[in-house]
Amino acid sequence: MENEMNVMSKAERERIPPHARIRNAKRGSYDREQVWAVLDKGLVAHVGFIDAGRPMVIPMIYARRGDTLYIHGASSTRIIRKVGETAPLSLTVTLIDGLVVARAAFHNSVNYRCAIVHGQARHVTDPDELDEALTLLTDHLLPGRWAESRPVSAKERKATGVLALEVEEAATKVRTGGPVDDEEDYTLPIWAGVVPVVTALGQPLDDGRLAEGAQVPPSIAASRGRFL
Amino acid sequence: MENEMNVMSKAERERIPPHARIRNAKRGSYDREQVWAVLDKGLVAHVGFIDAGRPMVIPMIYARRGDTLYIHGASSTRIIRKVGETAPLSLTVTLIDGLVVARAAFHNSVNYRCAIVHGQARHVTDPDELDEALTLLTDHLLPGRWAESRPVSAKERKATGVLALEVEEAATKVRTGGPVDDEEDYTLPIWAGVVPVVTALGQPLDDGRLAEGAQVPPSIAASRGRFL
Repeated sequence: MENEMNVMSKAERERIPPHARIRNAKRGSYDREQVWAVLDKGLVAHVGFIDAGRPMVIPMIYARRGDTLYIHGASSTRIIRKVGETAPLSLTVTLIDGLVVARAAFHNSVNYRCAIVHGQARHVTDPDELDEALTLLTDHLLPGRWAESRPVSAKERKATGVLALEVEEAATKVRTGGPVDDEEDYTLPIWAGVVPVVTALGQPLDDGRLAEGAQVPPSIAASRGRFL
Repeated sequence: MENEMNVMSKAERERIPPHARIRNAKRGSYDREQVWAVLDKGLVAHVGFIDAGRPMVIPMIYARRGDTLYIHGASSTRIIRKVGETAPLSLTVTLIDGLVVARAAFHNSVNYRCAIVHGQARHVTDPDELDEALTLLTDHLLPGRWAESRPVSAKERKATGVLALEVEEAATKVRTGGPVDDEEDYTLPIWAGVVPVVTALGQPLDDGRLAEGAQVPPSIAASRGRFL
């Protein structure tokens, strides 16, 4: 895996604010394309904000357009109300790829791809931006679904809280490959390797109330067997 | 799904501190058994803490014994150093079960099981507690693996940062079932239903360096096909 941090000078590293620095240089990168690759694969983000001095972490739907992330969920309005327009927000997306099983318990690990983003929350109020955000949020989970759906009404649009997060700092942390044991432990008769963790979309199940003529559309057909 | 919130009186609800209250009463519960069920199923938690006024969300390995959660990861020592012994910590585990696809884009949703825990961080320094925590952390991912592994050495134990989180407040949020469209939309010829999201452990792959006599042990054999 390519690793931007290994080619980063000390001066470059010092331009990254402390809260956004990756500690384990072997596994980290500040390359935005790698951040986008993880964000574009994930289904749900864990959004962090501070509420009355407490750290809050809530799963939310998200989507991306360039350097802007849109997030949506039951807590959008709460975040807007509690943290206001200029409070710091963070967003983490983690894809788990495998359990790394070493001969020594100490060397057990997890293979994963993780993107961590920092920025500020902004309530999306412009009608055009809100429509685009809702389109992106729908199509992030099932590409093409927006165009197949009954459009959002003015009343529904008003009831939907969407936050924009302008990405200020972003990094990935990735671990791949097998276990790394101490050299002397390779003679032990202990199994070691990787147990893959697989997340995939299964066979779509209709809700039993389809109207005549309702066929499986392209967005749903394409989802079957999609892997994260 | 059983729902404790629906039988909760206003007085009972007011005993829950505001930061730990679930907003959507239909989907929430404060029942600890339901919280433990989600925590015991998940692989990785998203841990939230505050670092220099910023919300941080980091994926970490965790395990549970009663009301105590143990968490471990590259950031354990950072959390200990930055937030100290008495800073508030939160931990969220989310299991994604399906994409809920409605006729109206507005009614799209996600089926999930989520546990949200609040408490305070404590650095595990007692040697007996640390050994038990490491056992629990190993066996959380692969039950029985600790006993099969080369034991942790004194040096390794010293290099391992484990945090304990005593659970003060905890709740689950769960959504199940198909889409709920507006009654007039059921005549539209638009497909609606659920696209299952399946996370499972796959076939174990050894690391190609097994010593003679290293067989697939029970913990690894049992992991194959395990679903979250």
